[in-house]
Amino acid sequence: MTEHPENDNQYQSLQVNQGTSDKPTVNPYLKNFKKFKKKTYTVDEYVDGILTGDISILSQAVTMVESSKPEHQAIADQIIEKCLPYSGKSIRIGLTGVPGAGKSTSIDSFGMFLLKDPKIKLAVLAIDPSSEVSKGSILGDKTRMERLSIAKNAFIRPSPSAGSLGGVARKTRETIILCEAAGFNRIIIETVGVGQSETAVHSMVDFFLLIQLAGTGDELQGIKRGIMEMADGIIINKADGDNVEKAKLAQAHFRNGLHLFPMPESGWSPEVLLYSGYYEYGIEEIWNMVQRYVDFTQKNGYFDYRRNEQSKYWMYETIDEQLKSRFYNNPKIQELLKTLEKQVLQSQMSSFAAAKRALDSADS
Amino acid sequence: MTEHPENDNQYQSLQVNQGTSDKPTVNPYLKNFKKFKKKTYTVDEYVDGILTGDISILSQAVTMVESSKPEHQAIADQIIEKCLPYSGKSIRIGLTGVPGAGKSTSIDSFGMFLLKDPKIKLAVLAIDPSSEVSKGSILGDKTRMERLSIAKNAFIRPSPSAGSLGGVARKTRETIILCEAAGFNRIIIETVGVGQSETAVHSMVDFFLLIQLAGTGDELQGIKRGIMEMADGIIINKADGDNVEKAKLAQAHFRNGLHLFPMPESGWSPEVLLYSGYYEYGIEEIWNMVQRYVDFTQKNGYFDYRRNEQSKYWMYETIDEQLKSRFYNNPKIQELLKTLEKQVLQSQMSSFAAAKRALDSADS
Repeated sequence: MTEHPENDNQYQSLQVNQGTSDKPTVNPYLKNFKKFKKKTYTVDEYVDGILTGDISILSQAVTMVESSKPEHQAIADQIIEKCLPYSGKSIRIGLTGVPGAGKSTSIDSFGMFLLKDPKIKLAVLAIDPSSEVSKGSILGDKTRMERLSIAKNAFIRPSPSAGSLGGVARKTRETIILCEAAGFNRIIIETVGVGQSETAVHSMVDFFLLIQLAGTGDELQGIKRGIMEMADGIIINKADGDNVEKAKLAQAHFRNGLHLFPMPESGWSPEVLLYSGYYEYGIEEIWNMVQRYVDFTQKNGYFDYRRNEQSKYWMYETIDEQLKSRFYNNPKIQELLKTLEKQVLQSQMSSFAAAKRALDSADS
Repeated sequence: MTEHPENDNQYQSLQVNQGTSDKPTVNPYLKNFKKFKKKTYTVDEYVDGILTGDISILSQAVTMVESSKPEHQAIADQIIEKCLPYSGKSIRIGLTGVPGAGKSTSIDSFGMFLLKDPKIKLAVLAIDPSSEVSKGSILGDKTRMERLSIAKNAFIRPSPSAGSLGGVARKTRETIILCEAAGFNRIIIETVGVGQSETAVHSMVDFFLLIQLAGTGDELQGIKRGIMEMADGIIINKADGDNVEKAKLAQAHFRNGLHLFPMPESGWSPEVLLYSGYYEYGIEEIWNMVQRYVDFTQKNGYFDYRRNEQSKYWMYETIDEQLKSRFYNNPKIQELLKTLEKQVLQSQMSSFAAAKRALDSADS
């Protein structure tokens, strides 16, 4: 690992806390800080700042990545390209679990455990496609990451609030590059356990961790199958006090359940561990597991293979998404599709003839 | 229903049996028949033949639909367009089940039951994307549809052997249009219980029927969840002899299992029935169920709604598929993607920058 000198700016953690909010704040420090934030940098200044680990500049670069303005995106693209050669040197961990599973409390505990090692710098990102409405899980849960949010070697960033999951995922993946270039060597990407967001997170991390609760009665139900199949590790939270026996039972259930799945491509058998995010039991064991996984997959070549597959996946995923959005966002096509839909529904044209007509029209 | 005069051609069923095979056959009838088959019709002759219920001409029109030659496709497109106004007047039933569930035997029994009514004409089609290798389930199972394959009002057609599922599905959907124009008022579309083919079949039928076996030990397993959720009815085969008790137990299991799912959009609660394809018990009840479903959904409007949604689905599905295949089949793009992939894997370019480069290149 390259050493990244720390930025001594005393406003650093405030800047981090501020996230992407553009609203004026009552915090008197931030009022003065506003002027500083408004300063515009050249691409090279951004890159130099990131490479020296300046969290304030990193944060503003991420704001560029998240911006929907084309001029910001152009700057972001250049920053990313220049940071790319310095990226890749972290362990990326995906973390999912239903609301109430204790994700934020757990991340706070995980983070404080990891940061005991002064060589570790931890970035916590999130993918929450619903964040436009809910204002983001991390932003809302900030109070539950009390210690981490003011820790020196931590960078917490709420989910970008772009529209589509694809857009949100892209911005998060680009933010990973910037964080890695800034010397962050552990990246946790949190997502809520709904919809397709787990798949997106799974496609950008080295290790996918599923938080479960004992005794919620939904252990091993079909609905969790897809997510369980993606997990490299399952951790059962709130294994404390009266709950320990239930948690052990759930652990046995999950272990049995995992045996029903074929051996993952990685050759790694997913483990099921108990812990308590609140009381901080079992945290060390979880990170030992992650490290053992990394060692194991780096040795058998799967670690690099998975990252390469992910890079290709996002390239082709982006192409496919763009092919569609370019076509369907064309006003001429939108108008034509309305007419064609009507003709198809009135059996004047087959679905396939209508599709051909629309495609031909885009070419002309 | 319009009446469609029958074609008296004695070679009719042989023609039907021959399917899409282009290989010379040892059957002496077919040797002479070859010349007749080679006769080319104009589009109007095809359409007239189909509308009068000429099964030989219908069969050759389907061959045009299935052909990969552009000149055949152009003819097929015109035939379909002209037949379209005469289509839609059938009940379309999808039928799936794992290999060994007795699909072919069941279809034979179902068919012979339905054809007791002289007003009924039954077409049996198949979607089997693997048919290129396995030569198609129906073709291989032809001997198990002994009675139906020589019945006057039946038309059996193996799965088209095109490459992609999308291609196979498209050809099958177009064949439905031709069969309906030829007066077939019951269409069964069979598929093997693997992969995505059920979804394709489900997207082109009015009623989706799942055949299950009692006592195979895989009842209600997570793996069947997606298919179970699509089913409008589940029928348990081989409910005969020693197997009756096991079948009744399976019936109870499936009924309970279905209660775990939310009420389908149709408002119809899927039923679970027992039958024996071999001994022909319970066949009438199955078709009473299908008819009750049709009456129920025609009354509440879901029948037409579902068909309209399917038409739109296939239109947009085709557009999406074509957008991709046009892009990726471009040799210039293929060449470029190889280079870009290499650059992405060497961290010289981000996945998103590479995607943009490829898309921009297609525009220029």
